Amino acid sequence: MTQSPTLAPIPSPPAHPAPIPSPPAHPAPIPSPPARTGPGGYSLPLSPSGRSSMLTPPPWHFAGEVVMVDYRVDPDAAASFLPPELDLGPDPGAAAAIWAQWQWCSESADELGSPQRCQFGEFLILLACEYRGRPMARCPFAWVDHPVPMVRGWVQGMPKQLGAIHQTRPMRVGSAGPRLGAAGRFDGTVAVEGRQIAQASVVVTEEAVRPPALHTVPLVHTRTFPAWLPGEEPLAQLVSSTVTDVEFSEVWSGSASLRLDGDAIPDLGLLAPVAVGAGHVFGYAETLHGGSALT
Amino acid sequence: MTQSPTLAPIPSPPAHPAPIPSPPAHPAPIPSPPARTGPGGYSLPLSPSGRSSMLTPPPWHFAGEVVMVDYRVDPDAAASFLPPELDLGPDPGAAAAIWAQWQWCSESADELGSPQRCQFGEFLILLACEYRGRPMARCPFAWVDHPVPMVRGWVQGMPKQLGAIHQTRPMRVGSAGPRLGAAGRFDGTVAVEGRQIAQASVVVTEEAVRPPALHTVPLVHTRTFPAWLPGEEPLAQLVSSTVTDVEFSEVWSGSASLRLDGDAIPDLGLLAPVAVGAGHVFGYAETLHGGSALT
Amino acid sequence: MTQSPTLAPIPSPPAHPAPIPSPPAHPAPIPSPPARTGPGGYSLPLSPSGRSSMLTPPPWHFAGEVVMVDYRVDPDAAASFLPPELDLGPDPGAAAAIWAQWQWCSESADELGSPQRCQFGEFLILLACEYRGRPMARCPFAWVDHPVPMVRGWVQGMPKQLGAIHQTRPMRVGSAGPRLGAAGRFDGTVAVEGRQIAQASVVVTEEAVRPPALHTVPLVHTRTFPAWLPGEEPLAQLVSSTVTDVEFSEVWSGSASLRLDGDAIPDLGLLAPVAVGAGHVFGYAETLHGGSALT
Amino acid sequence: MTQSPTLAPIPSPPAHPAPIPSPPAHPAPIPSPPARTGPGGYSLPLSPSGRSSMLTPPPWHFAGEVVMVDYRVDPDAAASFLPPELDLGPDPGAAAAIWAQWQWCSESADELGSPQRCQFGEFLILLACEYRGRPMARCPFAWVDHPVPMVRGWVQGMPKQLGAIHQTRPMRVGSAGPRLGAAGRFDGTVAVEGRQIAQASVVVTEEAVRPPALHTVPLVHTRTFPAWLPGEEPLAQLVSSTVTDVEFSEVWSGSASLRLDGDAIPDLGLLAPVAVGAGHVFGYAETLHGGSALT
Repeated sequence: MTQSPTLAPIPSPPAHPAPIPSPPAHPAPIPSPPARTGPGGYSLPLSPSGRSSMLTPPPWHFAGEVVMVDYRVDPDAAASFLPPELDLGPDPGAAAAIWAQWQWCSESADELGSPQRCQFGEFLILLACEYRGRPMARCPFAWVDHPVPMVRGWVQGMPKQLGAIHQTRPMRVGSAGPRLGAAGRFDGTVAVEGRQIAQASVVVTEEAVRPPALHTVPLVHTRTFPAWLPGEEPLAQLVSSTVTDVEFSEVWSGSASLRLDGDAIPDLGLLAPVAVGAGHVFGYAETLHGGSALT
Repeated sequence: MTQSPTLAPIPSPPAHPAPIPSPPAHPAPIPSPPARTGPGGYSLPLSPSGRSSMLTPPPWHFAGEVVMVDYRVDPDAAASFLPPELDLGPDPGAAAAIWAQWQWCSESADELGSPQRCQFGEFLILLACEYRGRPMARCPFAWVDHPVPMVRGWVQGMPKQLGAIHQTRPMRVGSAGPRLGAAGRFDGTVAVEGRQIAQASVVVTEEAVRPPALHTVPLVHTRTFPAWLPGEEPLAQLVSSTVTDVEFSEVWSGSASLRLDGDAIPDLGLLAPVAVGAGHVFGYAETLHGGSALT
Repeated sequence: MTQSPTLAPIPSPPAHPAPIPSPPAHPAPIPSPPARTGPGGYSLPLSPSGRSSMLTPPPWHFAGEVVMVDYRVDPDAAASFLPPELDLGPDPGAAAAIWAQWQWCSESADELGSPQRCQFGEFLILLACEYRGRPMARCPFAWVDHPVPMVRGWVQGMPKQLGAIHQTRPMRVGSAGPRLGAAGRFDGTVAVEGRQIAQASVVVTEEAVRPPALHTVPLVHTRTFPAWLPGEEPLAQLVSSTVTDVEFSEVWSGSASLRLDGDAIPDLGLLAPVAVGAGHVFGYAETLHGGSALT
Repeated sequence: MTQSPTLAPIPSPPAHPAPIPSPPAHPAPIPSPPARTGPGGYSLPLSPSGRSSMLTPPPWHFAGEVVMVDYRVDPDAAASFLPPELDLGPDPGAAAAIWAQWQWCSESADELGSPQRCQFGEFLILLACEYRGRPMARCPFAWVDHPVPMVRGWVQGMPKQLGAIHQTRPMRVGSAGPRLGAAGRFDGTVAVEGRQIAQASVVVTEEAVRPPALHTVPLVHTRTFPAWLPGEEPLAQLVSSTVTDVEFSEVWSGSASLRLDGDAIPDLGLLAPVAVGAGHVFGYAETLHGGSALT
C-alpha cells in the first residue's frame, strides 16, 4: 500500500498579477549563481546545514569522576607499544588503568540538556613514556560506551572501541555505596563483546597531596586513518592533545587490586600487571581543543 | 567434531585393601535416604545450591540520586488507575515524575563489588492516593535499565519494565555539569523501545525545608501474577512495601518542565501533565524488607 | 505448594435492603455510577483499558530457527536439578543446549508489524526426565535478549534471564554464511553480564530422519513466585506447557562441539558436558496456550 | 582537499653498500638491535602483532537479507546533499530506503565462527545521482548496530552511525512470519538515541524480473577525516567502492509504505518521502575490496 505523497499544494495565481517591472536603465549585472559547495559538517554525515555531523567541532568540555590504579607492566612489553619516536623514559613499565564516568559538552553546552547524549563511561590503559625528554603518556587501549566519544577518539588518534564500563558511584546517604571525598571502596569492571577484560578494586584511605603522575602528563597518540585507495599510505601522525582548564578535585588514595584478562583481546595480555600500586579516586575536568603534531 | 569428555579418572585400587569390617553386634538401623527436596532458591532459576536464583531474598539496601518533578494529572484519569480499595485523597490529581540512579545490595553487600550488577536507573510516575484515610502513593508506570530490579519489582507488585533512563549527574569540577548541593540544572530523559516517552528539566535554586511529599509516603501496589492454568484466578493482592532506614540528603528545589509522550505506551497519555510544579534534587536511601497485605 | 489467590470476596447481599428511593417528579434519572473495578490487564502494568499490560494473554504463536547440540551431563548433577516429582528416566544425563532466533505474535498478529517487538534470541539447556513414566524435558537455565519473553517465561515457570545470544544465520547468496537446508557450519554464543557462558559449533552434513528427541517432549517447569509477605509460602507449582501446531522443517544433523563456562553463574558448571553428541539445525514453530498442573 | 599523509620517508639505499663482514677472530658479535618500527595494524588500536586492530584489512565478504523501498524526495533536497562533482542525473529525486541484516567475514572467514562479531543490521538512504554521466548512488545517512561496520564505514566515507535496526525475518514454518521467496509482508524499523526515525512496510506479491535499480549502481562517498591540527584541511575525497562477486537471489516485489521522522536528526527531514513506490525483498552478497578516487 502506498503512502499518499505529501506534495506542496499548487499555488493559485494571484488575482491581480504583479506588473512586469520595466528593465532598469542600466541593468545590474546578472549575478552568476554561487558555486555549489555541497554538503558540509565537521564530520560525517555531511548535510546541507552541516548540522547532521556526528561530531561537533572542538573545543569540548569534559568533567568526570575517575577511579585509577597505578601498576607496572613488563618494560619490554610497554616498549613494544611505543612508536620509534617515543621511549620509555625514567620509569620503564609505569602504567595505569583508569575508569571514568564523563559528562561533556560543546562550546554551546547544548548537549548537557540531553543526558543520554552527554554521558559516557571510559576505561583506558596508560603507559609512561617520553618524547625527546618530555614526559608523556601513551594510551594503547581504550573503551567507551557511547559511539560519539568513540569516533571522536579516532579523530585524535585515541584507539577507543565500544565496551561496557562500570564503576562504583559514591552516594550521599545510606549504606549502598561509599561517600565522596572520604575513605571507602570503589570497584571498576569492563566487558568487551561479552568478555570481562578488566576488574579493579580501590580502597581509598586518605587524601593525597598531589594527583597521580600519569594523569598529569600530555597524551601522545598516533593519529591513524587506514588506507583505502590503491597505493595509499595510511595516515600515521604523531600528535599530542591540546588541553586547557584542567581541574582536579581533592584526590583520595589507598590500596588497589587489578586484573586484566587478555584472552579476548589480542596483545592485551602483554600489558597485564607485574605489580599493582596505589589506587586513586578523584574528580577531573578539562577542555580539549585539538592536537599538535610532534615533529 | 566431538569434544572429548572430561571424565574423572578411574581410581586405582589401593595396594593394601582395607579390611572388611565385621558387622557390629547390634547393627545400627539402615538410615533411610533423605527425602529429596529438589532444587531451590528465592526465585527462578532454582538450583541445587539455591545460588542460581536471579534474586537474592530481601532485605535490599538502596541509595541513589533523585531528580523529581511535582505535577498534576486530570483527577479522573488518576482515579482510573486506582483499584477500588484506594481513593484519591485530599489532593486529587497530585502526581510526580521521578528519575533516580540507584546502587543496591543484599544483606551481604556482595553486589557492591560488581558495579555492573548493583547499579540501575529508574523512572517512575507516582499518583497521590489514600487507603482508608492513610496517605499513600500509587505507581502506575515504572521503567528500569537492568533486569534484576525489573523482576524484583514484579515480586512486590511494582510494574517495572525495561527502558533507557538518563539523568544529569553533578560534577565536582569543570563546566560540564552542575554541582551537588547547589543551584543548577538537572535533566532527565526516558526512552522505551526506541521512543522517547518522558523528558524533564529541573532548575534548582535553593534548599528546601522538607522532602517532596509524594516521596515520603508508602507505596501501594497490586501484587500481580498472571493466570496460566485453566480456570486459575490471577494473583491480585493489595500490598504496601515495608521500608526502614530512610535517609534524605539535603533537598534542593526550584522550577521544572515536564513532557510525557503517550503515543508509544497505551494509557500513558492519560497521565500527561495538566500543570507542572516544582522540581527537586536529592539523595535518598532506604532498606526494603518485604510487603504487607492491606486488608 | 500452591499460593492461594487473594481475590476480592464476593459481597454478601445486605441483610436489609436499602429502600427504593422515590422517583423525582421530573427527571432525567441520574445514572448511578458503575461500580469501579479498577485498572486491569493480563499482567502489570494494570491500566484503565488493560492495554498497558506488558504481556498479551496467550495463545502466542512462535516460529524460529534452531541450532541444537545433544550432550551428556553427569546424571547425579542432572538429578540435583529435578524436583522430587521428576526422575531421570531411561537415559540419565541426556541433555541439550539449544540456540534459537524467534519471531512471535499474539492471536491478533499485531506484533509482526513491529520487528523490534516480535523478535528475540534464546539459549536454553534441557535435561531429559520423566514424570510418572512420561518422558519430558526440564529447563534448568534459559536466557533471552528481550524483556517480554523473559517475563512471559516467569509466568510459565521457565527460568528466563537476560543475555546476549547469537547464532549463525543461513544466507541465500555469497560466501558469508551457510545455506538453509544444506550442509554447513552453524555457531552459537551466549554472554551474560559481560561473561561468555556458552559456545557451540555444529557442522551439519545430512538430513535427519526425525527431529532430535529432547525437542519433541513436553517441558515441565516449576512455576515460581517468590514470597514477599510475612509467613507467605512461595508459589511452586509443577506445570507442563500446553502446545499445539508444532511444526518442524527438515532437520539437518552432523557433529558438534560445545563449551559451557560455569564460572560466572552459580551451579551452571554442574551441567558442563561430559560428552558431546550430534548437532542439529532446523526450523520450528508452535502455539503456546497455557499450562496444566501435574498432579 | 586531500590530507597529505605523514609518512616515514623512504630510506635511500646507501651509496656504498656495506662490505660483507669478515667473521670475527673471536667472539660472537653483539648483534645490533633491529630498528624498532613500532606497533602496527590496519587500524587503531595499533599493537606489537598488529592483531589488536579493530578492523581487518579488506577484502570483506558480505551476505545479507534486504528489505528495500523505492521512494522520491524533493529533487532540490536531493541536490543539496550532493557534492559539486555529482549531479542528479536523469531521474532527479529517485531515492531508496534500505534495511539489511548482514553477515560478513574477512578473507580468512574467521569471523563466521563468532556470530556476535560477524552479524549486523543496517539502514541506509540512497539518492540517485551521476558522476560525469555515470549512474551512481549517494548515501546521505546510514545506521548500523555494531561498532565494527560503523568504523569501517568511516574508512570508506560512508556516514554510518549507531542505531537500533530491525526487519522482519522470513520463517520456514508456522504463522509468525512470512516465507522466503514468496508473497508476504516485511516490516522495518529504525531507532536512534531513543527516537524512531524510520518505519516501512513492504507487501511483496510477485517475483521481479530484475533487481531494483538503485541497488545495482556503485556507491559514491566523500571520504572524510575531520581536521584536528592547527590549519589542517580535513580529508574530503570523492571515492567509489570497488566491489566484486555481486549476487542477487530472486527478488520479490510489491507495494510499500514508508515513514521518515526527521525531528530527531538535523536535515533528515529534507529527505522525507514525497511519493512512495515499490518495495522489494531479496538476498544480496558482495565482496568489498577498497575504493578508487573519482577524478
